[in-house]
Amino acid sequence: MALTNSRPLDIAIAASKSARALASLSKEERNAGLTAVHDALAASKTEILQANAQDVATASRAGEKGEFSQSLLKRLDLGRPGKYEDMLKGILDVRELDDPVGKVTLRTRLDDGLDLERIACPIGVLLIIFEARPEVIANITALAIKSGNAAILKGGKESTESFTAISKVISKALESTKVPQDSIQLVTTRDAVSDLLSLDRYIDLVIPRGSNDLVRHVKNNTRIPVLGHADGLCTIYLHKEANISTACSVILDSKLGYPAACNSVETLLVDEEVLYTTLATAANTLAGGGVVLKCDKLSEKALITVLPEKYHRFIRPAQEEDYDTEFLDLVLAIKTIPSSSGIEQAIDHINTHSSHHTDAIITTNADIAERFLREVDSAGVYWNTSTRMADGLRYGFGTEVGISTNKIHARGPVGLEGLMIYKYVIRGQGHVAGDYHDGPGGRKWKHEKLPVD
Amino acid sequence: MALTNSRPLDIAIAASKSARALASLSKEERNAGLTAVHDALAASKTEILQANAQDVATASRAGEKGEFSQSLLKRLDLGRPGKYEDMLKGILDVRELDDPVGKVTLRTRLDDGLDLERIACPIGVLLIIFEARPEVIANITALAIKSGNAAILKGGKESTESFTAISKVISKALESTKVPQDSIQLVTTRDAVSDLLSLDRYIDLVIPRGSNDLVRHVKNNTRIPVLGHADGLCTIYLHKEANISTACSVILDSKLGYPAACNSVETLLVDEEVLYTTLATAANTLAGGGVVLKCDKLSEKALITVLPEKYHRFIRPAQEEDYDTEFLDLVLAIKTIPSSSGIEQAIDHINTHSSHHTDAIITTNADIAERFLREVDSAGVYWNTSTRMADGLRYGFGTEVGISTNKIHARGPVGLEGLMIYKYVIRGQGHVAGDYHDGPGGRKWKHEKLPVD
Repeated sequence: MALTNSRPLDIAIAASKSARALASLSKEERNAGLTAVHDALAASKTEILQANAQDVATASRAGEKGEFSQSLLKRLDLGRPGKYEDMLKGILDVRELDDPVGKVTLRTRLDDGLDLERIACPIGVLLIIFEARPEVIANITALAIKSGNAAILKGGKESTESFTAISKVISKALESTKVPQDSIQLVTTRDAVSDLLSLDRYIDLVIPRGSNDLVRHVKNNTRIPVLGHADGLCTIYLHKEANISTACSVILDSKLGYPAACNSVETLLVDEEVLYTTLATAANTLAGGGVVLKCDKLSEKALITVLPEKYHRFIRPAQEEDYDTEFLDLVLAIKTIPSSSGIEQAIDHINTHSSHHTDAIITTNADIAERFLREVDSAGVYWNTSTRMADGLRYGFGTEVGISTNKIHARGPVGLEGLMIYKYVIRGQGHVAGDYHDGPGGRKWKHEKLPVD
Repeated sequence: MALTNSRPLDIAIAASKSARALASLSKEERNAGLTAVHDALAASKTEILQANAQDVATASRAGEKGEFSQSLLKRLDLGRPGKYEDMLKGILDVRELDDPVGKVTLRTRLDDGLDLERIACPIGVLLIIFEARPEVIANITALAIKSGNAAILKGGKESTESFTAISKVISKALESTKVPQDSIQLVTTRDAVSDLLSLDRYIDLVIPRGSNDLVRHVKNNTRIPVLGHADGLCTIYLHKEANISTACSVILDSKLGYPAACNSVETLLVDEEVLYTTLATAANTLAGGGVVLKCDKLSEKALITVLPEKYHRFIRPAQEEDYDTEFLDLVLAIKTIPSSSGIEQAIDHINTHSSHHTDAIITTNADIAERFLREVDSAGVYWNTSTRMADGLRYGFGTEVGISTNKIHARGPVGLEGLMIYKYVIRGQGHVAGDYHDGPGGRKWKHEKLPVD
């Protein structure tokens, strides 16, 4: 990894060249790069934590002036027990994943001696923009090298000292490996990023990891494809045939597990028949957990009627825009769905208002559930489970590049596979297209499917 | 299909609604739509050909003034023998393809009673912009309905009468089916297109089918992902160990098969050792076929020395920009590669100058060939076969939406699969994320791979 002050164009060209070299390395050579990075970071723990302590001190001073929140400060601190070790372990975990490069996903005999293969290969050059957490740099370096992609990284300025220290160590570690040093470049200025966003000739994919504002800013300022999601407005539809205990545990986990996460529930649609029963029970615990409930008229009336008075202060009237808001906080919008229109109206509400991230139904009725799973157009559609399941590790992908609400390439939690594309390889023996035709003497295609293993 | 004069926003919203309905139809319902369209077009052949004759007449008058080329005129004419029947057969061919909707591509048991599935689903709304050929409208209608995507179509203005007639027939045919009429909408003005290109909230993918200029214009004027290729600058590297007969037939087919096609060869890299032998033999036939050979100094000298004088007028000096030019004509740029740098320089030239569409090597040396296939970063990389093989029908995809040089989603010839994305479905029994942790009483993920068939 090079910490670079080069011109953005030079950075992009260097990345592009390294990408080609990196794409040609064997699995063993890429894995050796990861081992070297891991070992060097392990050996340099003291210096890196010293650098990180400077970032933390600077941020603490900003924090005292109210410019930096406590939760950001916590994220910044690599010295917390276990955090550095987790970062190191993450590199080895990525190394142990199945090699995504070179997988054959289609094999067809076009004709005798003329075979077509579709082979997974790296996308090329990734531009990855992230915020405060300094350990992300190690994680992304590992993902890029494992997948054979070059990466240009830009981290939040709060972590400058940490990044500089880490990138020096990684750069030196790669020297002794086949992984080109320019495969991973770190840029430190915002200006560089806006120039890089215009270099679609060299950069193939942008991955912003951070706040909605960051993602939206990137999406609005580049022609390079962006992998990510601006909003995570997740919805749960509480159907009238829901099991009350399932409903309560799923809703609570979806809201209270980590309210600031993109996969937390923001809107609860409730069948009118269960306002005074299932909803009331769930709302009781939600209010007990400090969740403000923004209710439409019917649900407000029900909760005021049923909930103990100490919780009434959590019940507020909803505005129309609450059903389009990602609160990322202890707030839940509640909307009543008439039993007569039921599933149809719920699906329509979700397809219109959700951000197509993750939406769930709670019901014991399998037909209703299957209709929901089929007709809701979101990256994740769940039956009787928490929206918080939307996560690459929980899906078993080993790691996660991010969660995408794109409609092409990769959708939902994205693992290493999302960093791959493919190419078509044909090996022939002088075959020419002109020989295949319907006329006399024309050859016919065989198009025989061959096994891919 | 509706021929529409609605506002672009209304068109896009209607398409988006239809897309959801269409995505929920069964394979039988979508296929019934295709059958209805086929039968109606078959029954209305006379009226449609009358409308088409008006377009042809208008174009002929423009042709007399030199505003319309003969080859465009030919493409416009649906009345040529067999063309209408081919169009009809194309619809049935698409109907018979494997259903791409609902295919399960991953299935994982996250825990007992908690299963994850990844299921192929339509992308949503396609905006397809194409030029003169009127039969394309039937082809695209078939692809969209088969894949469960709604489509907004804009065809070249030369085919207005044909399109209007065809769209009326299709619209009426869909009335009696479950396929919503707004699934396929035809717009007729250029203004509508530029408005539609800004509606990335409703339109998920743009597919321009036509000239490079069209594709480039679209790519420069939208934030919606574009599937296609602006350039088809294909290269052949003639290695010194090439079989002479393979070399000649592959080069000739790649250049002379259809010079205006995107998969025709535009640059020939030649190892210096075979300038006077293999190249000379191939060049002799190329010049005989009327191909202008734009040569660097060494290859020019060789061909002037070896070729009969009658062909000398086809030998011209190359300028640097010729190696970056897609001629789409009877022109081939030739560049000598020194034997000393050989494969490395050839790969570097291709990765720098080609449009990453399709590139081929001719050699009997398997190691050299495999290095080329591995290191050339193009959608198609071929060994001893013609660049003209780059085609969805030849690949056995049954149909082709276009050829993509994108680095994400779909690359190379794109069949129905390129019109699909996926969603993740989880069916649980009240499982919540908070139960899975390393602490006491925490549950562990099973992540057991299940068969997908």
